[in-house]
Amino acid sequence: MSEYKLHCFAQSGNAYKAALMLELNGADWEPQFVDFFKGETRQPDYLKTNEMAEVPTLEHNGTSLTQSGVILDYLSAQFTAYGPRNAVEKREILRWTLWDNHKLTANIATGRFMMLFLPEDKRNPDVIGFLIGRAKAALTVLDRRLGANEWVVGDQMTTADLSCVGYMYYLDEIEIDAAKDYPNVARWIDAIQNLPGWKHPYDLMPGHPLAGA
Amino acid sequence: MSEYKLHCFAQSGNAYKAALMLELNGADWEPQFVDFFKGETRQPDYLKTNEMAEVPTLEHNGTSLTQSGVILDYLSAQFTAYGPRNAVEKREILRWTLWDNHKLTANIATGRFMMLFLPEDKRNPDVIGFLIGRAKAALTVLDRRLGANEWVVGDQMTTADLSCVGYMYYLDEIEIDAAKDYPNVARWIDAIQNLPGWKHPYDLMPGHPLAGA
Repeated sequence: MSEYKLHCFAQSGNAYKAALMLELNGADWEPQFVDFFKGETRQPDYLKTNEMAEVPTLEHNGTSLTQSGVILDYLSAQFTAYGPRNAVEKREILRWTLWDNHKLTANIATGRFMMLFLPEDKRNPDVIGFLIGRAKAALTVLDRRLGANEWVVGDQMTTADLSCVGYMYYLDEIEIDAAKDYPNVARWIDAIQNLPGWKHPYDLMPGHPLAGA
Repeated sequence: MSEYKLHCFAQSGNAYKAALMLELNGADWEPQFVDFFKGETRQPDYLKTNEMAEVPTLEHNGTSLTQSGVILDYLSAQFTAYGPRNAVEKREILRWTLWDNHKLTANIATGRFMMLFLPEDKRNPDVIGFLIGRAKAALTVLDRRLGANEWVVGDQMTTADLSCVGYMYYLDEIEIDAAKDYPNVARWIDAIQNLPGWKHPYDLMPGHPLAGA
């Protein structure tokens, strides 16, 4: 049995945040497929380990952790990697992780879900337009940030980058071209992609691309 | 000059999270009105202190902090109040604060904004229905949690409660009746309301109720 078990599926950028953290740090980990598109996260057994009905859930040493931001913080202590060097950086990591959850990931993930994974007759163009519009506003904030800083929090990569990058390798699926519209974001996406050990979400977690479509 | 200055306005539940934390702890603080409805948060001067174009921003001892979750964490250390007693509680507080930002506050705040503050001809019923539906799903998760625990994290009140309660005193404005549909949430809303020093957001922060309508 591996040291870490991550409940995840290929289409979840939230799970990818944790999976990429494990992979970049060379952890002994294995994915446990969650059949989200068949409603597994809403079943009583799954709710016992994650009452928020979400992925990811991480199991380690008898402890079960949920929320990607909690998992990233926990793993940064386990690996002494991508964590803060001082109190100011700690607040900055938390600040951008919260913002990512609230403004960046929330809108991209939900907009993408509605564009790609709902049955066609349930895809509401007004709702999709609203969510993608909000996602683009968040990308504009991130692009401004990454125009002034190499990494989200400053001069070194942290878990805030791993949080914000969660959905970035799916952007083409929702017809967002970072290279064209968010050049600083595109530069940063490439920098993470070039790290030793980087893998695309579809190569890191089980479940076929667009399996729910 | 007061020790703490909070950039806020009455209709912001995110600002209320910080304002209520200051008030319950008897802090020497003053509100600084942000004219959100006239676009102040998107002006260059405001973006210099909060590039996320949001309220609240807290000023204290020459430091400027943004994101309600960061401010709550900072203030819990300042006042030694509503913080974690151990590492497990610390993770639980972070977990529910992230969830609040992502699922509870994000949908209630945005749904309410679209229902009340947009010009009538821009209020899209499909988008409003989508957001309020997501808000109700989050309230169901919270209600289940508060059916099993007195407070969000367990047996004592923490900043996770102050985060989750941010928009609860506005629920009537969006026609959600917690007493009827989320009885555990209603019990918990009342418990916070009964704390010494509690004030309604409209009594704690400047700006007339529904001023943007």
